[in-house]
Amino acid sequence: MAEAKIYTTREITQYRAGQHAIYEGSVVLEKPLTLFLNHVELATMICSPGGYQELGIGFLISEGMIQKRSDIISISCREEEGLLWIETSTPTPQTDNFLRRHMASCCGKGRAGLYFINDFRQLQATQSDTQFTAEQLLGFINALENQSDVFRLTGGVHGAALADQSGLLFMFEDIGRHNAVDKVLGKAFWDEISTSNKCLLLSGRIASEILIKAARSNIAFVLSRSAPTELTVELADELEIAVVGFARGDHLNIYSHPEKVIM
Amino acid sequence: MAEAKIYTTREITQYRAGQHAIYEGSVVLEKPLTLFLNHVELATMICSPGGYQELGIGFLISEGMIQKRSDIISISCREEEGLLWIETSTPTPQTDNFLRRHMASCCGKGRAGLYFINDFRQLQATQSDTQFTAEQLLGFINALENQSDVFRLTGGVHGAALADQSGLLFMFEDIGRHNAVDKVLGKAFWDEISTSNKCLLLSGRIASEILIKAARSNIAFVLSRSAPTELTVELADELEIAVVGFARGDHLNIYSHPEKVIM
Repeated sequence: MAEAKIYTTREITQYRAGQHAIYEGSVVLEKPLTLFLNHVELATMICSPGGYQELGIGFLISEGMIQKRSDIISISCREEEGLLWIETSTPTPQTDNFLRRHMASCCGKGRAGLYFINDFRQLQATQSDTQFTAEQLLGFINALENQSDVFRLTGGVHGAALADQSGLLFMFEDIGRHNAVDKVLGKAFWDEISTSNKCLLLSGRIASEILIKAARSNIAFVLSRSAPTELTVELADELEIAVVGFARGDHLNIYSHPEKVIM
Repeated sequence: MAEAKIYTTREITQYRAGQHAIYEGSVVLEKPLTLFLNHVELATMICSPGGYQELGIGFLISEGMIQKRSDIISISCREEEGLLWIETSTPTPQTDNFLRRHMASCCGKGRAGLYFINDFRQLQATQSDTQFTAEQLLGFINALENQSDVFRLTGGVHGAALADQSGLLFMFEDIGRHNAVDKVLGKAFWDEISTSNKCLLLSGRIASEILIKAARSNIAFVLSRSAPTELTVELADELEIAVVGFARGDHLNIYSHPEKVIM
């Protein structure tokens, strides 16, 4: 098993109890891996670097496509390019059927991978000059946690909310991080609430798919009590979105566009 | 916005520091919602009950399929059946292309929804009489946490591992919960490690898709420091898989097949 580095370091602005400082912090990497089964492109996974062969095999087992080791004829991988080929003695699923079955799992989870870059190219930088103070952002996260009844009861859901200068506007809780965000953005859209001066906040990790959802809704502030990925931060730099993570208690980390946060 | 109940209660066996007791605990619900766009079946999302209209709209925004409120001509929903219809003035994407684009996000995330039931029917109950002691299970979780270097550094990854009577065999960390599990199962498969007497453990929530992955690999023990969903527990009851959650410090909760846990 190759030991791949699954995180990198970058400059992060940390705010803590009225003070701020820049330090070198760690951020996880997010990479696409495209799996070709018997020379047919089957799937692109967004994953951490490393264990690509195991991931491809595990994917085929989980899909019920292979049952025993001898079903696999050959495996080859170009790690740098994120390409994996597996040849099996079992039949390749009818692509259309397979894709249709698969839709079931995608939904509300956004998308990524090779297509991701095309999506990204369609997006424009937010043109928002909205700012929030660090203390406002900490207040939002605190309010989200206080309102997360189900999380406290069951530990099983993610929360997402929209906030403006006056505080939290509304929130949703869902077993899916992506669903919770989609519910928030769907409500804002339906109620014709302008989003360019709002902050999207969530309890879970800020994966690149979440950032793209924010960009599509022209939101310039994404806040979480968890971490963003490196890809998220790179995209946020370009899309002019402030990404604030690890907001807990009296401190938070600003990963992109710190000029949008008043400290 | 309808207030839907997103959790239920069920009997849970709690072990704590050598003692055990049965209590009524809360478990989150997991439901499929199928979205029809202009009378074409587009997607099935696995989500918490409620906010279905918002979720469907949010999904279409996140996919770049609608830009303004007037793009939506009508919405109707049968909440009980998990069916949502949205009619738009924007074109319905070419199904095949849309499905193909979507594959990008599915991968390594399993699948669910309406197709889920069919998958489930293909699965057989594990025929394992393997047991672990509660203290062994707590030891596994403790070892997983101690080995999760990247999580400690970045807070951004999930860990998954395989364990037997001797302790942890190997682990993977990945930004995706499903990826981490697929990497573990893929390695076991490739190395021809028998799984029926092993415990699959993970840091994240035990969603039904994770349980199905375990069942496909004939694993009779799934352990997490987080919570399972109600659907997971129902499936685990039938598939004869012990589901143990909230394993932290000196305590854990047994949601199904407590006879497999020696206390």
